[in-house]
Amino acid sequence: MQISVPATSANLGPGFDTLGLAIDLRNEIVIKPSRFLSLSTKGEGAQNPRIKKNSLFLHIFNEQFRRLSNGSKQSFRFEFTNRIPISRGLGSSSAVIVSAITAAHLAAGLKYNKRKILNLALRYEHHPDNITPAVMGGFNVACIEGDRVYSKKRRLPSYLRAVLVVPNRTISTNRSRHVLPKMYSKEEMVYSLSRAAYMTALFMSESWDQLRIASKDKIHQERRMRMMPELFEVQKLALENGALMSTLSGSGSTFFNLAYADDALKLHKVLEEHFPQFRVMTHTLDNVGVIGKP
Amino acid sequence: MQISVPATSANLGPGFDTLGLAIDLRNEIVIKPSRFLSLSTKGEGAQNPRIKKNSLFLHIFNEQFRRLSNGSKQSFRFEFTNRIPISRGLGSSSAVIVSAITAAHLAAGLKYNKRKILNLALRYEHHPDNITPAVMGGFNVACIEGDRVYSKKRRLPSYLRAVLVVPNRTISTNRSRHVLPKMYSKEEMVYSLSRAAYMTALFMSESWDQLRIASKDKIHQERRMRMMPELFEVQKLALENGALMSTLSGSGSTFFNLAYADDALKLHKVLEEHFPQFRVMTHTLDNVGVIGKP
Repeated sequence: MQISVPATSANLGPGFDTLGLAIDLRNEIVIKPSRFLSLSTKGEGAQNPRIKKNSLFLHIFNEQFRRLSNGSKQSFRFEFTNRIPISRGLGSSSAVIVSAITAAHLAAGLKYNKRKILNLALRYEHHPDNITPAVMGGFNVACIEGDRVYSKKRRLPSYLRAVLVVPNRTISTNRSRHVLPKMYSKEEMVYSLSRAAYMTALFMSESWDQLRIASKDKIHQERRMRMMPELFEVQKLALENGALMSTLSGSGSTFFNLAYADDALKLHKVLEEHFPQFRVMTHTLDNVGVIGKP
Repeated sequence: MQISVPATSANLGPGFDTLGLAIDLRNEIVIKPSRFLSLSTKGEGAQNPRIKKNSLFLHIFNEQFRRLSNGSKQSFRFEFTNRIPISRGLGSSSAVIVSAITAAHLAAGLKYNKRKILNLALRYEHHPDNITPAVMGGFNVACIEGDRVYSKKRRLPSYLRAVLVVPNRTISTNRSRHVLPKMYSKEEMVYSLSRAAYMTALFMSESWDQLRIASKDKIHQERRMRMMPELFEVQKLALENGALMSTLSGSGSTFFNLAYADDALKLHKVLEEHFPQFRVMTHTLDNVGVIGKP
């Protein structure tokens, strides 16, 4: 079996816990029936003993495989090729969750649809903004009602690029959550709500020119950027050098810049020059989402 | 000169101060040069001495006409035919503002574009959710940046109807604003923000089946409906009888129900039977917005 799952960038500024899109930067997993559990890990995190164990993947895979196969004792060999930077706000956890659930369905020999994978993923990750594009690909708007994700996808055009600036350190998700207030003023709320809806309309109609206005936020972005002040410079430089929008990816630390393909190379170079300590990566966007091959 | 401007329904549930659409229910004004100021009013509000004076219209018209015509002393006769119920959350004030600004441009013999009318209207009405569809027609997402409205329009299909339930009394806008808290929890904010974005995606892609989920709100709607508790019954009955969504129109008191044309007649009848004290009106939606003929 082979599973492939894309990186994702969530929030996109004002779309807090709601908006996300998929990037053609994929983790791949090859799974083979085996007499004993074994695993190998290449790429991102391969040097990190904690990540090398793939314990989140195995926990979810085992739980779902047991449920779907009526308690089968079959063991597997897992070969992970990780390309999504870990704990940098590019949906590496969501990728693990979505790929583990998909793998469990394949291993149990069951058909599945993406909506089902998505609703199962919500049990492990209670925010829909990364898991939805990881499953569906494309630009997605998602909300939760009861224990289900309701979402709408829009394909992303091939003439756009994600120019990612990946810092050399993380912003702790925990700290990143605690830095947010519990209450928001009506003004902050309307500011971000109106822009989240406006950004949705722009993506749905492929109107990119006003993304700069639509991508501003008063809920979370600046509060989180203050934990790594260089990010303000990254954003400023990106917007001065061709980025259509420049937003904190998820809860950080990566910065997501959207650009026309024609502008992406220059933007990439400028960012690389000014931030030699950070990794800059340019990728096309993804419209496919998780792929599972039996 | 002739000006015609549509009714509008704003908020649409979670789209607080952001979403709105135009309804083909129009106020019309005929304006003729005249030696003295004179006016006549037919239709909604014609019996109300305060409204009959059309003082908001005249104030804005005069202010704009003076500015645009370099202080011309020309007087006019104004013939108002009002069809938009007054102070019922159907954008009657926005219609007055938008038509007065449009009229002033016509009277001064000036060309105008709709974006300019909209930005001028924002000076008189600081929320963009009614003025934007009144100017543009269709479904609109709007946000404010500086002193400008940024908005995106989507045409509404001819197979949909607005089934409006117009109560026999108003909810005071002032009370309606004061009933809202100054601060919102993260949960309330995300609940409405995600649905406002989801609703936008549904309107932009003409996907109506999930509007019922998308149109729920935790910011303002129930807090305002409690001032006129029959509205909860209106909403329940509408959703049980074919409404795709059922939301408080603006700050009330009208309830806006969206339905397929095929379901609208039955919905209209059921609502009329159960609420004989309220007016029920069914209209097509509008994609044109304000019209000015020299």
